[in-house]
Amino acid sequence: MSKARTEAFSDGVIAVAITLLALDLHVPSADSAASLAHELGAQWPSYAAYVVSFLTIGIIWINHHAMLRRVVAVDHAIVMLNVVLLMTVVVIPFSTALLSEYLKAGEGDHLAAAIYGGSLLLMSLAFIAMNRLVLVAKPDLVDQRITEEQKRWLLRRNALGLTPYALATVAAILSAYVTLGICTLVAVFYALPATTPDPTSLDM
Amino acid sequence: MSKARTEAFSDGVIAVAITLLALDLHVPSADSAASLAHELGAQWPSYAAYVVSFLTIGIIWINHHAMLRRVVAVDHAIVMLNVVLLMTVVVIPFSTALLSEYLKAGEGDHLAAAIYGGSLLLMSLAFIAMNRLVLVAKPDLVDQRITEEQKRWLLRRNALGLTPYALATVAAILSAYVTLGICTLVAVFYALPATTPDPTSLDM
Amino acid sequence: MSKARTEAFSDGVIAVAITLLALDLHVPSADSAASLAHELGAQWPSYAAYVVSFLTIGIIWINHHAMLRRVVAVDHAIVMLNVVLLMTVVVIPFSTALLSEYLKAGEGDHLAAAIYGGSLLLMSLAFIAMNRLVLVAKPDLVDQRITEEQKRWLLRRNALGLTPYALATVAAILSAYVTLGICTLVAVFYALPATTPDPTSLDM
Amino acid sequence: MSKARTEAFSDGVIAVAITLLALDLHVPSADSAASLAHELGAQWPSYAAYVVSFLTIGIIWINHHAMLRRVVAVDHAIVMLNVVLLMTVVVIPFSTALLSEYLKAGEGDHLAAAIYGGSLLLMSLAFIAMNRLVLVAKPDLVDQRITEEQKRWLLRRNALGLTPYALATVAAILSAYVTLGICTLVAVFYALPATTPDPTSLDM
Repeated sequence: MSKARTEAFSDGVIAVAITLLALDLHVPSADSAASLAHELGAQWPSYAAYVVSFLTIGIIWINHHAMLRRVVAVDHAIVMLNVVLLMTVVVIPFSTALLSEYLKAGEGDHLAAAIYGGSLLLMSLAFIAMNRLVLVAKPDLVDQRITEEQKRWLLRRNALGLTPYALATVAAILSAYVTLGICTLVAVFYALPATTPDPTSLDM
Repeated sequence: MSKARTEAFSDGVIAVAITLLALDLHVPSADSAASLAHELGAQWPSYAAYVVSFLTIGIIWINHHAMLRRVVAVDHAIVMLNVVLLMTVVVIPFSTALLSEYLKAGEGDHLAAAIYGGSLLLMSLAFIAMNRLVLVAKPDLVDQRITEEQKRWLLRRNALGLTPYALATVAAILSAYVTLGICTLVAVFYALPATTPDPTSLDM
Repeated sequence: MSKARTEAFSDGVIAVAITLLALDLHVPSADSAASLAHELGAQWPSYAAYVVSFLTIGIIWINHHAMLRRVVAVDHAIVMLNVVLLMTVVVIPFSTALLSEYLKAGEGDHLAAAIYGGSLLLMSLAFIAMNRLVLVAKPDLVDQRITEEQKRWLLRRNALGLTPYALATVAAILSAYVTLGICTLVAVFYALPATTPDPTSLDM
Repeated sequence: MSKARTEAFSDGVIAVAITLLALDLHVPSADSAASLAHELGAQWPSYAAYVVSFLTIGIIWINHHAMLRRVVAVDHAIVMLNVVLLMTVVVIPFSTALLSEYLKAGEGDHLAAAIYGGSLLLMSLAFIAMNRLVLVAKPDLVDQRITEEQKRWLLRRNALGLTPYALATVAAILSAYVTLGICTLVAVFYALPATTPDPTSLDM
């Protein structure tokens, strides 16, 4: 299997998924009795969810990219798990639209937020599974400059990334806004320059 | 003709087609009398069809990728047949939406399932035609490390892949669920690591 | 300007445009009084238009690809004209949907067909403009193995390609079916192996 | 981080965003009492906005491409700011649809035009931020053939690019047509061959 074409296909799928987020930005009907300003104001959950999900998918892409940089080749199992990972990424525009629709409605928003948090958790799980497959089960495919210690660091950091999404999913019981808030913090945290430098990033 | 650009274009088309599957995941209207949980539950055929079609297109991409790895160059006939193959792939989000809509409606689902199975059968036929064109009619374009025996193995395995989709199409007479079940099994079968190792995969 | 990135961007835009053609394949509402078979049958213009436009955009991609193979580099003017060419390609899913909608309605179909033919004519004109810019105005950017005679052959063949689309546009006065028929013939003609071999194709 | 994959992802996102502009070209319903010609005529703001936004995104792509050509590598901060830049590009099909819808309605068009101008201003700001980050804060990542004088020229020209979009946004108070007019002039200006040659373009 070609690593280059796996990257190209993944880039394509993630690029389309991230752009489809914009389809949830609806143009209010000009026939409405309310003013355009009022209509747009009422749609703020769509704008907030757009920004959070865009940053989140952008960060998925960055991490995906970093993960594939660490391997020298891919095999059937990695490519297949990659398809599953992409399947969870492509669901995000749907769960984003669900969250913003029900935040606006003010009803059913707990369930919608749980599904939103759950979709990010699922994506995170698929990511961990793929990372683990690469680093643990396929040592021959990993760049030989990566030490055992670095592998452990990567797996640990990856597992930690699961916690906030699990929290965000559970927090939907309290309020959909708490879920969106936690997901926003995660996106901002990853967007900021790393405080703990990635010990593997300098090797490549 | 450039093999690299043919791959890039195919990756792009398949990436968009696989992502468009998500457009069939509808956000239930917040105005509905039923609860969100009930509305989402009623849409389970969409989720099932999404997973099966996503895996199926993912596998098409893997096979497409493997097929082009075996050629050293492409010509007008191959590129043109590739366009026809892509045309059958791009139809899959439509036939998937058709199946899930009529599974939900519980009427017209036999025909919808036959069309779904038929669209996968058509894609499979286009794939076989392209593989045959490459391996049989254009021996000069095939990687010289592939032996005659390996070619026969590839063509045989390819032809066998047709059977389940033909079966799935015919089974729509019995029940749309049987069609979806067969297509699920095919996707799972190809997703699992190959029991019979691909004798040509180690050569490249 | 980088030729590789111009190709990648063009591949991306054409891949999305060709896939968006599938958005015009509508799933008939399950609530309709008519049977699914009848509903699908009534949509045949959509299927015919899908096939013709898919092949047409596929052939545009092949020709675009061949055109860029003949240049060794691109400059601002070429890249800008390429954006205009892509703008005409991206219109095709719209004009295709327009044609199929009004073929079904049986009214307004003359105008819809004229717009469909006109959109292909426009794309053809943008293609000729870009080819002419490359071959005539930027001789330094053209692969030096291409002779003056080959350039003239390419420009002549290109100009000839305009005729059927001009004819298809005018023929809309007679009938929308004649327009669709001519566009079908053009697609089939280009899809078949060339009878007059391209004297420049062997050079690269 | 890989510059090549950053370019590929950006190309993908921009290619999808530019193609989604076509989704705002609506096929008029065949059931309408008005003639197709009349219906299409009434949609001229959609066509005008499509052309202006397509050229604008095309030019963003050209500039993005030129910006990345000047760097030899990318780091986390650049890639992250690139995600933010892409987020503003992906909003353009939405603000384009908003403008054309409210130009047709003849009401709420001042606000819609201000949002349209504002979305281009925002994109321009993200572009300047990224260019400044690269040229000022990351001198090690910049191609060493670019002189300090050329950097100043690039930053100055970039900052100047902000003015017309700021003007277009403010001009929405007067008329939405003035906003669209200014944005058209900007697109045409950048599309034409540069009068002041880019002193850095010959170096690469």
